[in-house]
Amino acid sequence: MDNKNKYEKIPVGILGATGAVGQRFISLLADHPWFTITALASSERSSGKKYADACGWHLDTEMPDSIKDMNVEPLEPNLPAKIVFSALPTSVARDIEPKFAEAGYVVCSNASAYRQDPEVPLLIPELNSDHLVLLETQKQNRGWDGLIVTSPNCTTTGIVFPLKPLDVAFGLKRIFATTMQAISGAGYPGLSYLDIADNVIPLIKGEEEKVEKETRLLLGKMDGGQRVESQVVLSAQTNRVSVSDGHTACLSIEFEKKPSVEEAIQVLAEFQGPKKNRSLPSAPEYPIIVRTEQDRPQPRLDRDAENGMVVSVGRVRPCPIFDLRMVSVVHNTLRGAASGAILNAELLVSEGYVD
Amino acid sequence: MDNKNKYEKIPVGILGATGAVGQRFISLLADHPWFTITALASSERSSGKKYADACGWHLDTEMPDSIKDMNVEPLEPNLPAKIVFSALPTSVARDIEPKFAEAGYVVCSNASAYRQDPEVPLLIPELNSDHLVLLETQKQNRGWDGLIVTSPNCTTTGIVFPLKPLDVAFGLKRIFATTMQAISGAGYPGLSYLDIADNVIPLIKGEEEKVEKETRLLLGKMDGGQRVESQVVLSAQTNRVSVSDGHTACLSIEFEKKPSVEEAIQVLAEFQGPKKNRSLPSAPEYPIIVRTEQDRPQPRLDRDAENGMVVSVGRVRPCPIFDLRMVSVVHNTLRGAASGAILNAELLVSEGYVD
Amino acid sequence: MDNKNKYEKIPVGILGATGAVGQRFISLLADHPWFTITALASSERSSGKKYADACGWHLDTEMPDSIKDMNVEPLEPNLPAKIVFSALPTSVARDIEPKFAEAGYVVCSNASAYRQDPEVPLLIPELNSDHLVLLETQKQNRGWDGLIVTSPNCTTTGIVFPLKPLDVAFGLKRIFATTMQAISGAGYPGLSYLDIADNVIPLIKGEEEKVEKETRLLLGKMDGGQRVESQVVLSAQTNRVSVSDGHTACLSIEFEKKPSVEEAIQVLAEFQGPKKNRSLPSAPEYPIIVRTEQDRPQPRLDRDAENGMVVSVGRVRPCPIFDLRMVSVVHNTLRGAASGAILNAELLVSEGYVD
Amino acid sequence: MDNKNKYEKIPVGILGATGAVGQRFISLLADHPWFTITALASSERSSGKKYADACGWHLDTEMPDSIKDMNVEPLEPNLPAKIVFSALPTSVARDIEPKFAEAGYVVCSNASAYRQDPEVPLLIPELNSDHLVLLETQKQNRGWDGLIVTSPNCTTTGIVFPLKPLDVAFGLKRIFATTMQAISGAGYPGLSYLDIADNVIPLIKGEEEKVEKETRLLLGKMDGGQRVESQVVLSAQTNRVSVSDGHTACLSIEFEKKPSVEEAIQVLAEFQGPKKNRSLPSAPEYPIIVRTEQDRPQPRLDRDAENGMVVSVGRVRPCPIFDLRMVSVVHNTLRGAASGAILNAELLVSEGYVD
Repeated sequence: MDNKNKYEKIPVGILGATGAVGQRFISLLADHPWFTITALASSERSSGKKYADACGWHLDTEMPDSIKDMNVEPLEPNLPAKIVFSALPTSVARDIEPKFAEAGYVVCSNASAYRQDPEVPLLIPELNSDHLVLLETQKQNRGWDGLIVTSPNCTTTGIVFPLKPLDVAFGLKRIFATTMQAISGAGYPGLSYLDIADNVIPLIKGEEEKVEKETRLLLGKMDGGQRVESQVVLSAQTNRVSVSDGHTACLSIEFEKKPSVEEAIQVLAEFQGPKKNRSLPSAPEYPIIVRTEQDRPQPRLDRDAENGMVVSVGRVRPCPIFDLRMVSVVHNTLRGAASGAILNAELLVSEGYVD
Repeated sequence: MDNKNKYEKIPVGILGATGAVGQRFISLLADHPWFTITALASSERSSGKKYADACGWHLDTEMPDSIKDMNVEPLEPNLPAKIVFSALPTSVARDIEPKFAEAGYVVCSNASAYRQDPEVPLLIPELNSDHLVLLETQKQNRGWDGLIVTSPNCTTTGIVFPLKPLDVAFGLKRIFATTMQAISGAGYPGLSYLDIADNVIPLIKGEEEKVEKETRLLLGKMDGGQRVESQVVLSAQTNRVSVSDGHTACLSIEFEKKPSVEEAIQVLAEFQGPKKNRSLPSAPEYPIIVRTEQDRPQPRLDRDAENGMVVSVGRVRPCPIFDLRMVSVVHNTLRGAASGAILNAELLVSEGYVD
Repeated sequence: MDNKNKYEKIPVGILGATGAVGQRFISLLADHPWFTITALASSERSSGKKYADACGWHLDTEMPDSIKDMNVEPLEPNLPAKIVFSALPTSVARDIEPKFAEAGYVVCSNASAYRQDPEVPLLIPELNSDHLVLLETQKQNRGWDGLIVTSPNCTTTGIVFPLKPLDVAFGLKRIFATTMQAISGAGYPGLSYLDIADNVIPLIKGEEEKVEKETRLLLGKMDGGQRVESQVVLSAQTNRVSVSDGHTACLSIEFEKKPSVEEAIQVLAEFQGPKKNRSLPSAPEYPIIVRTEQDRPQPRLDRDAENGMVVSVGRVRPCPIFDLRMVSVVHNTLRGAASGAILNAELLVSEGYVD
Repeated sequence: MDNKNKYEKIPVGILGATGAVGQRFISLLADHPWFTITALASSERSSGKKYADACGWHLDTEMPDSIKDMNVEPLEPNLPAKIVFSALPTSVARDIEPKFAEAGYVVCSNASAYRQDPEVPLLIPELNSDHLVLLETQKQNRGWDGLIVTSPNCTTTGIVFPLKPLDVAFGLKRIFATTMQAISGAGYPGLSYLDIADNVIPLIKGEEEKVEKETRLLLGKMDGGQRVESQVVLSAQTNRVSVSDGHTACLSIEFEKKPSVEEAIQVLAEFQGPKKNRSLPSAPEYPIIVRTEQDRPQPRLDRDAENGMVVSVGRVRPCPIFDLRMVSVVHNTLRGAASGAILNAELLVSEGYVD
């Protein structure tokens, strides 16, 4: 990468560029050290327009000038890019992403369409970069010139980060997880003010099943080129609360080998991803921050830590039923969505999957 | 009561009349069919003033005219009243409530000072009116002319309502409860907007312990004049969210005898308190409402059901770890505080404890 | 009316019954002493379904049982009703309302389509019931068997209420009005939480022009069967703020004959509509409440006063440029929309326009 | 300054270091290119403690490590610093600030105590740096070794920024200003969530008078060493809304010489402070941004522009009564408070007032 970095950036495209996650991708990639945005694509309705005209920009940061005059292209695999980030709705992603992979693109998807596909890595570089070997099976069985990797659901991300190192150290058995999720997780325009202000909505459709399944996949182990799902049992109750960004999860955990509070904190605080991944541009050195104040983490105070790339964990304490309780906070649209997918792309570059 | 009701109302006083819960008591008692407010008492600083001058009224309803010119008295047991409702801070209640009980007053307390006292009923008329026999021990051992009964913590109330009938029908073993609690639960002024807006605070000091303990007391059985605490194990994680009124709890329950979803719903929906208590002025006919919409209950939509006196339960569904999951919502300052204490007073009148 | 009232209620229909204002009409009319809902109509997409299936009910109060199984009819003038309340979008109202008027229905419209039509009364019973004579011109020129009356924009309502009695007493010249408007004014789903939470949006499209024009119409005088627009000049700046219900307006007023603060307060506080209109079921005895606390009115505390039918006015004080400044609050979906239109219908019944 | 900058930073202290504005000062000064924090002082109650123990830090950014172990000193003029930033409450500032000025400190105050003192500059470097000559009178008449300059009220700042260049170009006569102010303007803990959520409070005590007076002072001209107050007449109506940071003001302006919308926009957009002040570390090149989107400025989207140091202006349009209407947004705790005072200190350094 070093040489390439010096001379030219890798051209990347964004599928679904006008939506909420698409805008995040643009905002994050505008100054990326390795990548340069060379293509924006969207559904029929937007394509053909200039981006500034096609898009109702609603992030707090300004639309990057470099992007305003780019044309929005249709979702067809002839974009001038090597990597494409997919911010497509699931139903569209199901058709479009394989077409791009077949045509040779490296697809880093934030959609849920292929997250549970046994030949598609569901990837968090610090946690399961060994799952990349699935790409060989993917290539073999599908004959694609390119590839697809996916990043997990934003809620799963905030939960699986503390779970993974604890699983390695002490063996997980069962977990109760109750979440209080931010409104930005529902995209834009997402929830009406009249529905969610001064309220809690105790249902996010399909979310509990996704969290329960994806956690088992992410904690799964590779065996002979195949991903063997973890046997951990998770019960998730997911709620929408009146928070703009940042998902909070209350966890109660049962272990094979019960750790003390101190032992658990030490494992969490010292956790790092594989050494070679730590210097990826978007990777935090320590992806978990353990807060010791008794009323932390809080989404407003902790979601933005280290550019929204770390998961904050706190209130580690005993549980009267299981072994330990704790609270985690993740920035759902950064680490839990766009930034997570960008880190995946960085890993793929560093591992030689992008030529 | 009937005759008394026709001719004269019972004089009641409010201790801590200027605070948040005190104002609720006043608002609720202003038109009560059995009770009439004859005394308002508060700490030194307020006492001696007219109520309208002593109190920064902040309820959405107007201050009742009948109260504006009443003098605020000091907290001394010489008030012209038979029943006193205590909205005192715990530390003050610890000293003051026994003085009133000793002097012959019927003290209906919303404070936590004596909730865990083995000789003081922790009372919800629909759930454990049999605990009133504790008052005999109380009288015997303390020699009081009056008495103290307490109402539980607002969060406990929302959780124990569905638990009680399920315990009777199927036997409870273990419960995980994660709560999302309203800001009014912290009194007034309570939380700063800057702290809780766009945020979740995952700590309410002392709350988890209260909920875990009070639930066991409320589910306890009387044995030879003594209350035997339930052996149910509860793990509570309590959070403050950006909601004005209404506590939401996500429950996962393990039973002795696992019910189907339908069986549990039937038991909850058909639950009623003892027949003789159902006609108390503040008692709802069915204290639990089962919502069948998949995204209910919600605090904004369900907290005010039947004047805030019912607990709404919904999302009854299986749990991958325990047997059933469900969500409850309770109005924390009505059923969970002032209205609950008033219903206790009505029960005491109806049972002959107020002469 | 008296006899009719004893024996049977007047059948009424709601056009646009599934939308936000339509739901308010249903909720308000469910127990109305004079009216009974006999027809619900909506656009093609909803019509043919039962109301409970066609409508995503989102009011805090429950959907009335009596309405759940009613069929939603298409928007055609063959509904079994005498009066129809129109909660239609303006573009639809433009076509549909005249068809109903032509077919003999009394149309009480909340839409803006005909508010500025010189032959259609823009009506607030307490302020300008003399404008009803326009109905004669309307009948004559259009040959309708029925009729249309309209109620003003919600913001106009909150502003014109204090203006009218002050105009009569002291003569208005010029008014600056800056508003802070509730989110429910934008209908449902209306604004995204992500757009308006923690924010002010200083634009409500077309609102400033509506307020400036409608105020002149409402303050207009009848002259030979024609409405002569007032010459008052209003400059309106309208803003959306993070409030669910209740529009607040800051006014600075220049008079022909400058009143003292006390004189203005007296005129406002003593204002009443014409005597014969005061006993209409929805009419408040005094439609303006003057708050004397220095920090009132506030939307959360004052919007619901007298079932949301009064306008609260406060902070009456001198202005360094014009003569007086003051603040008003109106409940935008009650007095400013559905309840206002119902009061108009009551006036039409009482004046003999409904047979 | 250049040489000094290379070798050593200027030692600065913060008076009132534990409060809301004090925390902002610390956060902003932690990495300042010219200044280094060498002293923290606070009232008796906090003094003597380490800062981390004395302070309930509540900013979204972390407390700087460099500050945690510093001792909090009493408010006495023996601090190891040359400049002190005063974030004291007005009543305390009245006594303390002159003591520091007398003892030789350069006091940059954010308090209102001396804002209207005829011998104390009320200063915004881009607008009225010529008012610094008042410091000579100040020195002469009071015999201080040091000096006091003040920064205006946060609301005044957002209003006076567009007014000043318009005054120079077209001559101001009269202005109506209605504000919608953020909650952080009330300090910490400031407003209770229960009071301001879902609400507007139409009173901020003393604010209207401050805005009206301070605007005239800032627009005032120097004449023979004295500040002659502007004769502009302003009518301010100030409201608190449910916004965390960022004050919005709706303005209607009457000019001596009426500009077109385009002329006004040009004057605003091209406005710059005196050339020599533009390179101060905290000075934006253009302190006013004119937004051309019809729904801007909005506090959430515009408050942070250029580190919160610019004032955003938009919706410039004609007024039916006066000449032009427009909307401004300012970050009340940055440009409108701490950052504004720091820029004042930078100006004093650059002008040679700090040796």
